[in-house]
Amino acid sequence: MKASIITVGNEILKGRTVNTNTAHIGSFLTHMGYDVIRNLVVKDDPDEIGWAFDTALSVSDVVISSGGLGPTFDDITVPSFAKHFNIDLVLNQEALFILKKRYGDRNLKVTPERMKMAMLPAGSIAVKNNVGSAPGVFMELEGKKILILPGVPSEMKDILSNASTLIGNGDFFYYEDTIHLEGVMESSLAPMVSELMKKYKGKVYIKSHPLGIENNNPKIDVEVSSQGSSMKEAEDAVKDAVETIREHWRERMGK
Amino acid sequence: MKASIITVGNEILKGRTVNTNTAHIGSFLTHMGYDVIRNLVVKDDPDEIGWAFDTALSVSDVVISSGGLGPTFDDITVPSFAKHFNIDLVLNQEALFILKKRYGDRNLKVTPERMKMAMLPAGSIAVKNNVGSAPGVFMELEGKKILILPGVPSEMKDILSNASTLIGNGDFFYYEDTIHLEGVMESSLAPMVSELMKKYKGKVYIKSHPLGIENNNPKIDVEVSSQGSSMKEAEDAVKDAVETIREHWRERMGK
Repeated sequence: MKASIITVGNEILKGRTVNTNTAHIGSFLTHMGYDVIRNLVVKDDPDEIGWAFDTALSVSDVVISSGGLGPTFDDITVPSFAKHFNIDLVLNQEALFILKKRYGDRNLKVTPERMKMAMLPAGSIAVKNNVGSAPGVFMELEGKKILILPGVPSEMKDILSNASTLIGNGDFFYYEDTIHLEGVMESSLAPMVSELMKKYKGKVYIKSHPLGIENNNPKIDVEVSSQGSSMKEAEDAVKDAVETIREHWRERMGK
Repeated sequence: MKASIITVGNEILKGRTVNTNTAHIGSFLTHMGYDVIRNLVVKDDPDEIGWAFDTALSVSDVVISSGGLGPTFDDITVPSFAKHFNIDLVLNQEALFILKKRYGDRNLKVTPERMKMAMLPAGSIAVKNNVGSAPGVFMELEGKKILILPGVPSEMKDILSNASTLIGNGDFFYYEDTIHLEGVMESSLAPMVSELMKKYKGKVYIKSHPLGIENNNPKIDVEVSSQGSSMKEAEDAVKDAVETIREHWRERMGK
């Protein structure tokens, strides 16, 4: 099953903020058994947000977005999404309860800007946010699952973990290991990696990540991962490949 | 003028690697005077790479990609790009010279895996890489500029700065400042931000970035930026807005 991740926010596009959210969500989905196929980052703009959801949903079973859920004028992910898919925004009682409690505890009124965060698409579920004000929004659309999260990383992470039962598992078990090698260049390793990938016939994925060369000593991380039909199958395949790579490296280095 | 950024790499999608490259390229393009409108991250897959370039070029004057330029089997950005746009790959003498020198200095042969990095799209320019082996690839296509960079950040950054003359300036001057405020919630600031944005009629962009609440003391960074027709115009507009926000905050806090 495939998944895509959307990020809404000008600050990401301008490079003001590094997009750590997609990495967290990507890792979460991969370990849940989904194949993450695209990340899309768009502006705080209704048309761009609509385009991102259309594009992501056209190739994915699960779509998770982050950003644009706060109280300011340019936090427009939820209304833009709802308008684009012709879904009414309705006052969500659970979301309102969370907001009232949050602001009430601080003796603050639920202003129109704050009330906005309780207006959710009809048929959606408000997912608990233990860290901030805006709840996450979960809904199903044409058999696909959608989760809309705020951009603040601590809130995003909290809601994502609260939504894991709603999202459910994908169709494989994921296992990964990384081997750190020194003294061998990526280009020297390349033929062996190609050969191993053929040997494992797609069961194991191997990718070398060069970390740079210092004092003429190249350093590489080799990522070895597997998407198995059971965790044991994935783990066995990875461990076997890791051992083969280590042996090859030891021979090469005369160790 | 608009720009989009593509990242090619499964490791980004799986969240194994945080996508710092798009932040660096996004900041570079913004300060060069381009409006960065989309980031697309796709797999090391020819069809996905083709889709990303099509999508980015359809809405942008400049497209910069990073990732998939190395010597391994899944480094396929350049051949995938060339095939998708029906451009022949030809041996680039300058790229070959760089490779020969780099590997020759280490007494290593230019193997087929290494030679791959010297096969560039016909009509493209090899952009110098002072850090690694693979040169950047610059070309113009239907009046749009394309720059293809490797994924290793140090190499990407080096080539990007070497390509700045080829990319050239966009159509505005960018100025930005950030104000750090404490003791005020984003939702309390929201009405004032909306008002200020109206006052400056699109000349100034203001965005609050909540940093979280500790000991009931909320912290916010307020980003104030402007895209002016001169640097002075952009700077003046930002400074004026910053002063107004500071005053508002001082009044609020009774300082």
